[in-house]
Amino acid sequence: MAPSKTGERLIYLPLGGAGEIGMNAYVYGYGLPGKERLILVDLGVAFPDMDGSPGVDLIMADISWLTARLDRLEAIFITHGHEDHLGGLPHLWSQLKKPVYARAFTATLGRMKMEEAGLARDAIRTVKPRPEVITAGPFEVQFVPVSHSIPESAALVIDTPAGRIVHSGDFKLDRNPIVGEAWDDAAFEAIAAERPIKALMCDSTNVFSPLPGRSESTLGVPLSELIARSSGMVVATTFASNVARLKTLAEAGRSAGRTICLLGRAMKKMVLAGEESGVLQGFPRHIGPEDAQEVPRKNLMLIVTGSQGERRAASAQLARGKYLGLEMREGDTFLFSSKTIPGNEREVLKVVNALSEKGVTIVDDSNGKYHVSGHANRPDLEHVHRLLLPDMVLPMHGEHRHLREHVKLANDAGIAALVATNGMMIDLTGEAPKVVDRIEAGRVYLDGSVLIGAMDGVVRDRIRLALNGHVTVTLIVDEDGEALGEPWVDTMGLPAKGRGGRDLAEVLEADLTAFVAAAGRKLMGDDDKLEEALKRAVRQVAMEAIGKKPEVTVVISRLSAE
Amino acid sequence: MAPSKTGERLIYLPLGGAGEIGMNAYVYGYGLPGKERLILVDLGVAFPDMDGSPGVDLIMADISWLTARLDRLEAIFITHGHEDHLGGLPHLWSQLKKPVYARAFTATLGRMKMEEAGLARDAIRTVKPRPEVITAGPFEVQFVPVSHSIPESAALVIDTPAGRIVHSGDFKLDRNPIVGEAWDDAAFEAIAAERPIKALMCDSTNVFSPLPGRSESTLGVPLSELIARSSGMVVATTFASNVARLKTLAEAGRSAGRTICLLGRAMKKMVLAGEESGVLQGFPRHIGPEDAQEVPRKNLMLIVTGSQGERRAASAQLARGKYLGLEMREGDTFLFSSKTIPGNEREVLKVVNALSEKGVTIVDDSNGKYHVSGHANRPDLEHVHRLLLPDMVLPMHGEHRHLREHVKLANDAGIAALVATNGMMIDLTGEAPKVVDRIEAGRVYLDGSVLIGAMDGVVRDRIRLALNGHVTVTLIVDEDGEALGEPWVDTMGLPAKGRGGRDLAEVLEADLTAFVAAAGRKLMGDDDKLEEALKRAVRQVAMEAIGKKPEVTVVISRLSAE
Repeated sequence: MAPSKTGERLIYLPLGGAGEIGMNAYVYGYGLPGKERLILVDLGVAFPDMDGSPGVDLIMADISWLTARLDRLEAIFITHGHEDHLGGLPHLWSQLKKPVYARAFTATLGRMKMEEAGLARDAIRTVKPRPEVITAGPFEVQFVPVSHSIPESAALVIDTPAGRIVHSGDFKLDRNPIVGEAWDDAAFEAIAAERPIKALMCDSTNVFSPLPGRSESTLGVPLSELIARSSGMVVATTFASNVARLKTLAEAGRSAGRTICLLGRAMKKMVLAGEESGVLQGFPRHIGPEDAQEVPRKNLMLIVTGSQGERRAASAQLARGKYLGLEMREGDTFLFSSKTIPGNEREVLKVVNALSEKGVTIVDDSNGKYHVSGHANRPDLEHVHRLLLPDMVLPMHGEHRHLREHVKLANDAGIAALVATNGMMIDLTGEAPKVVDRIEAGRVYLDGSVLIGAMDGVVRDRIRLALNGHVTVTLIVDEDGEALGEPWVDTMGLPAKGRGGRDLAEVLEADLTAFVAAAGRKLMGDDDKLEEALKRAVRQVAMEAIGKKPEVTVVISRLSAE
Repeated sequence: MAPSKTGERLIYLPLGGAGEIGMNAYVYGYGLPGKERLILVDLGVAFPDMDGSPGVDLIMADISWLTARLDRLEAIFITHGHEDHLGGLPHLWSQLKKPVYARAFTATLGRMKMEEAGLARDAIRTVKPRPEVITAGPFEVQFVPVSHSIPESAALVIDTPAGRIVHSGDFKLDRNPIVGEAWDDAAFEAIAAERPIKALMCDSTNVFSPLPGRSESTLGVPLSELIARSSGMVVATTFASNVARLKTLAEAGRSAGRTICLLGRAMKKMVLAGEESGVLQGFPRHIGPEDAQEVPRKNLMLIVTGSQGERRAASAQLARGKYLGLEMREGDTFLFSSKTIPGNEREVLKVVNALSEKGVTIVDDSNGKYHVSGHANRPDLEHVHRLLLPDMVLPMHGEHRHLREHVKLANDAGIAALVATNGMMIDLTGEAPKVVDRIEAGRVYLDGSVLIGAMDGVVRDRIRLALNGHVTVTLIVDEDGEALGEPWVDTMGLPAKGRGGRDLAEVLEADLTAFVAAAGRKLMGDDDKLEEALKRAVRQVAMEAIGKKPEVTVVISRLSAE
């Protein structure tokens, strides 16, 4: 590999995932400033919530910086199959149209997604682990197996003329992960010995977890014991993509003499992808919900989707009532083999309380026996820093607080580090990372079937509608600028009656009628001013009547003499 | 006290707080069935969220069961001054207009609220602790001091012809609570010795916390050490009503040589109420924000509102930027002397990450050193069960899962117990609690200045507006049932452009124009059917164009020949 030519530089530009957990999208570039050849690592989604993005289906990084430089983009690499790394592909790939590289399991999931979106399956190319090398312009990229909570997660070794980068992807130090490859110290030692590591871009999710992470393999015995102790039906939920956990759960159920039934579309899809790509072997025999109805409850175990309380997933359905002919009852056990992601507490507790009403015994992970995290904890991160001895650490996959803590951790080990959040372009060429540019790093929303910008005002208007309700005012004006009839008011999301028990719409109509009667010819002749005046009048009257200022749509129809 | 007369019964009817944490409101009754004389214990609020109650200001129990029986209601008793026990008073009292009894600190807070609402201060009467007895019809009520996270919390001893009830209120077993009275085993032993306890209505909040609760007094030393270690400005947040904590924090700050400044309206109000009612003495001298600007950062400590990430509170303001001339900087310390209430994680983390961006050191309660809960933990509950040896336990102040666990705990101690949730009327007269009726236990919302029913559809419409956006269609029809001009479409909270980049409003208008042109005279003459048809058309076309079905307001104006 040639040494870096004068003036050329190596840059790193997170577009998503740095300063948040979700919608990962990291750009690397090498070349003369402004002419760097580019690669994209991961293209994920984040999930909307009612507080900030009501009605939205998915959130993705704004890739317009990339689409404005498509001629410089070489390829896309996907580290693993989680939605926050892969999920943006079917929605954004057609704006990029570059080859996508991933390992077999991830590629299988990616192709399913492309197909569902009506896109070409063959955009995604399957890559074998290192030593296979993908050359993409000045970049040479290798996939290094790491353990995580989904099969075939990979770190990337990215060789550039300016040095070697390790992009960790999501990982944990699991030496016995049940499904997929174990974490391998020797492999990473060899990578660092082969060529010094210039920069480590590193998962920061669990930097606040003080104890070393635990292995997936520690769960089998406690789970088997729990299931053996349970008398009625056992239902366990976890992330569908955690194929190792599905296997651990299913095997624990089998060992307790139970027949396994998988519920939830994602669950079946993941097992299928695991078997298709060859990573999942020997998954216990399982039956469908119809057959499950015939199995005595004490011999049955369901493994279901919805560990985060998602309204439409199997867990929430079972909590509400009968689902696919199956119903939970007093004496049954429901196990959360999962952690509640911050922000999902309310939804998860809804499921828990609904199950409680049914008399179901609920077991959660409060004691840490039935779930392990998929991310490296603080001592694990320190271990990886020592193993790779990079010149610099750029923390990623974390909120600001995680990135900042991870920088401290690296600094404590004498390694240069920097909090680089979405939109910060970092020059890695020198001895320490250096901010060289800041681009507008926005978000786009998949809203129904349309992509909209987060700052377009669409969602802001929806939030206002939710907070303030809506009033429609229609007014017909004749050719002489005289109101034809009275203004008509329609309300939505507002109390029917205001102060003193008076009908809100009537109060508004009475006031607007008086307003229009008193309005001068000039105002009546100016649509914009009249609209503004009517809106103001509605808000003011509503404030007096109900103590709220609603959103207002005013429609002025002008009848012209024909 | 006379023994219970034949046919008379003692009932318990939670209207709020049983099956949820919040909006406590418990009814007790004694007399012939349907003729019981009634008292109400607590009248609190719950807080809205964007998911379920957007735009709502406060949530309260529906008290229409009580207002339909006002002639039987004797009095209202408030156990303590927290919003979920006292907060409904200013909004609902005018529907009840009965005397309200509370201890001095609670009464002071209540009077402030009544005054702000323009109601009579003297509706609230100050009661001394037991042995003072309030007689309210067949009930004799005494306030027994308990420790909690607000001064002068009280359990109620409610004597009835059918036996003695202890209504725990919110409490913890703190033998050294810094401010206010300590938990007193002997007092409760005496109460049980004086007359056997028929029923214990008991706080269930911390039934899942396995270790005994810790005392407020354990916090002083760790807090002093933390503050002494900090170099820049120190900012601490906690619930304003936790007057003991305010004192502990202020004293820890003083002992580290810092000047104290309180920020946030609630903070100042609570200290005032504490001093006015006499419960708070020797609170360290504190200064206003203007004077605080003159104090060197290393000598300054702010105690601020907003421990739950509330957008408008001082914590969030300081996280966003300058607030009242004060601003946090790199090297400052921000302490959460509080726990995040489930559901508030997202808002709290926003504050944390914003502070992280400022380079502030954030200390939270993850290690339990800087905060203690105000509620009795599992072993504490067991202790109280043993102390009072009631015939029955009715768990309250908890979600279903808490109540159910608390029932198990009581049953394990050989005590009859029942999960009684809002709306379940329980007959306590016999040896075990018995469900005798179920009433519709709803919620009302304070929405702006109006009270609306939770099931009125107002909030449902707002949620739909937030999820689906809104379309206004206006159509003018002449006296012959012919459309005058074309339908006009206005959208709000929807993408401007749909599939193929076509303007959504234009697509809708074109389609509606075609629809109206093809509509028969009969449809054009029927407002309801025409409106329904236009709505359906809008939803269908929008689904094709943008993948969403919006909410639709249709306004049909009929011009009549004059």
